[in-house]
Amino acid sequence: MDKTAFFNLSYGVYLCTSWDQGRPVGCVANSAMQITSEPATIAVSINRENYTHRCIKDCGHFAIVVLGENCDPTLIGRFGFMSGEKTDKFENVPYSVRGKLPVPDGGLCFFSCKVVNVLETATHTVFLGEVIEAENVHRGTPMTYSYYHKVLKGKTAPKAPTYVEEKASAETGAKYVCSVCNYEYDGDIPFEELPDDWICPICGMGKDAFEKK
Amino acid sequence: MDKTAFFNLSYGVYLCTSWDQGRPVGCVANSAMQITSEPATIAVSINRENYTHRCIKDCGHFAIVVLGENCDPTLIGRFGFMSGEKTDKFENVPYSVRGKLPVPDGGLCFFSCKVVNVLETATHTVFLGEVIEAENVHRGTPMTYSYYHKVLKGKTAPKAPTYVEEKASAETGAKYVCSVCNYEYDGDIPFEELPDDWICPICGMGKDAFEKK
Repeated sequence: MDKTAFFNLSYGVYLCTSWDQGRPVGCVANSAMQITSEPATIAVSINRENYTHRCIKDCGHFAIVVLGENCDPTLIGRFGFMSGEKTDKFENVPYSVRGKLPVPDGGLCFFSCKVVNVLETATHTVFLGEVIEAENVHRGTPMTYSYYHKVLKGKTAPKAPTYVEEKASAETGAKYVCSVCNYEYDGDIPFEELPDDWICPICGMGKDAFEKK
Repeated sequence: MDKTAFFNLSYGVYLCTSWDQGRPVGCVANSAMQITSEPATIAVSINRENYTHRCIKDCGHFAIVVLGENCDPTLIGRFGFMSGEKTDKFENVPYSVRGKLPVPDGGLCFFSCKVVNVLETATHTVFLGEVIEAENVHRGTPMTYSYYHKVLKGKTAPKAPTYVEEKASAETGAKYVCSVCNYEYDGDIPFEELPDDWICPICGMGKDAFEKK
């Protein structure tokens, strides 16, 4: 089996949120899709080791927030690379309660869902949710998983910074990679010269989380 | 509920194939996603009114073929806008048998799957398939559902034909739309002057399937 074939499946980039006994929680999800239109249902696949999984099981509701290409990337870092058990991912993240669910600001639209069925697999639960509220919030192009990887790799950076990165690499041979989210720094300022309060644009960690490679 | 919010979910364009007592059958599917990696499983959602649905139920296997942006669009028309009960969709479509399933030529890769679980909903069945064979066949960019809609609307045509289309429209006020797949003709030759053996680039129907609107 050639596992690289799986890279050809297309996904979006979503936040999946729920409640932990009144505390908002959430994670990044890619495997979400509409299943039926009458009634409107959405299925989302969540790893059972994910803290949000337990919260969805307990409260019986989840929301899907669609991220756009121009969304704040720290949302992905915050919700995708930290644990909701130890961290309050919603700290400093404005959100509203829509259709009973916490919906962080910054998405293109949201779907608030009530769990009506589940499909258990070896490692993930597929939650089938009946949509109880759905609304467009901002206009924009939905981010695809493929686009997200291009951004992470810095391929969408303008030519000049890329050139500088290559030049810097050639000079120093060093790469700086975030130990939390694997983001590889590709800015036009040498990493060492970044201000002390600079943070990873993906996960929001400080400079000290970066490793020289 | 704003149903246009659902347009923000991202999908690919896939062929889902199976066997009808030894005869290859298939349909177009968008709602497919990987669920687990160990073992590798894929879920696909198929409408129960679809003939392929019954065949997957009966034979317990399905294949997912990923279409690329440069695939032959008549594959989509053939598999997406005709019924496998009345039509042999594989007529004149070269295919091979991979991992026990019929895999039409022209896709980027395929996944042959054995059904290991199902999730029933109001109108669709979500089949969970364990991947028994997967392979890349061609290099290319996977087609997204969003891209497919742009192609169908002719937005990817070069400027000149679009201009001609607008001119023709202004002159005649007429549009020619395929009654089978809703493809709107946007070529640079006036529709009436197309040769008699011209066929719809999406579903392969003849000129007489087009309606003047």
